[in-house]
Amino acid sequence: MAMSPLIDRLIEAFQVLPGVGPKGAQRMVLHLLQHNRTGGQLLAEVLAEAVDRVGECEDCRNLCEEARCRFCADPRRDDALLCVVESPADILAIERAGGFRGRYFVLHGHLSPIDGIGPEELGLDRLLERVSQLQPAELILATNPTVEGEATAHYISEMISERVATITRIAHGVPLGGELEYIDGGTLVHALQGRRSIR
Amino acid sequence: MAMSPLIDRLIEAFQVLPGVGPKGAQRMVLHLLQHNRTGGQLLAEVLAEAVDRVGECEDCRNLCEEARCRFCADPRRDDALLCVVESPADILAIERAGGFRGRYFVLHGHLSPIDGIGPEELGLDRLLERVSQLQPAELILATNPTVEGEATAHYISEMISERVATITRIAHGVPLGGELEYIDGGTLVHALQGRRSIR
Repeated sequence: MAMSPLIDRLIEAFQVLPGVGPKGAQRMVLHLLQHNRTGGQLLAEVLAEAVDRVGECEDCRNLCEEARCRFCADPRRDDALLCVVESPADILAIERAGGFRGRYFVLHGHLSPIDGIGPEELGLDRLLERVSQLQPAELILATNPTVEGEATAHYISEMISERVATITRIAHGVPLGGELEYIDGGTLVHALQGRRSIR
Repeated sequence: MAMSPLIDRLIEAFQVLPGVGPKGAQRMVLHLLQHNRTGGQLLAEVLAEAVDRVGECEDCRNLCEEARCRFCADPRRDDALLCVVESPADILAIERAGGFRGRYFVLHGHLSPIDGIGPEELGLDRLLERVSQLQPAELILATNPTVEGEATAHYISEMISERVATITRIAHGVPLGGELEYIDGGTLVHALQGRRSIR
């Protein structure tokens, strides 16, 4: 025991958060108890409500507390473009970047037979349904540029090739502001293969 | 709005934690909602309970859910030594280090007239009471080695000088494993002044 049974339990409970170890958890707990009880109480209430109410969007599997997420519910978004991502965090990253106004579909992972994650766990049957509903002109596969992400993109493109006119994969290349000297070889090969004429 | 009203509120609520900004909060929220709802639910419950039940130890002002903290309730600790610290985290640091078996008193801060923190806010009247109760042979002032910590230690030693035979201040000096070359001048002056004979 470090402090008291209840405080120790709380320090333990905070360690479910990603990147939070014993020391960080202790700092959080003491901060809340000493300096911000109102904030701590609000956090407890909102967290309990979210864990209880947040589910998956019926259309795209994004996280939300309503039947449909804000991207699926928004009539101004473009049904012709459907973008497949691995996680809700990827949607946030794409939205922050701006420029994309189509629809999304969230896999909640990537194919990983060793972990028992197959087409069913990724909701690919529901992706097929969604494609039938929207009849998009283009399906953008925005899974991560990892071995599993590539395999998942390949699997989906095979599965859907008959139903969508254009299937694309996000470009791999040198990130903006990156220096060639420090970029890994695989990325550099992609950057060269994907070169585009500029005049 | 980024995700959904409830998820956005939760991301906001997580930012009361020290060192957690919008990106870190988003990562925590999505992690809990996607991968660990049980852990999130437990965190919400324990946090609500702790905010509600944790108060201050009647004897030493340490945080605890009982009337007395484990250090004050433990009959095996040495009443002859009373150690004054700024925060409960300092108690944890001293306990982790080991070797101290006396009692504690927590100020919950240091004197800071500009922030309206005077002797009353630090519970110095209760420190006097505790000194009367325990009749310690030695009072150890373990406030931080900052300007405010030193001023607070000085104030307390003046206030209590008549009542305790020995009043000590923790040593300032070169930390173990530190390199002289990189230690600041003030610390080095203290280290030299506080030198001890080794044979």
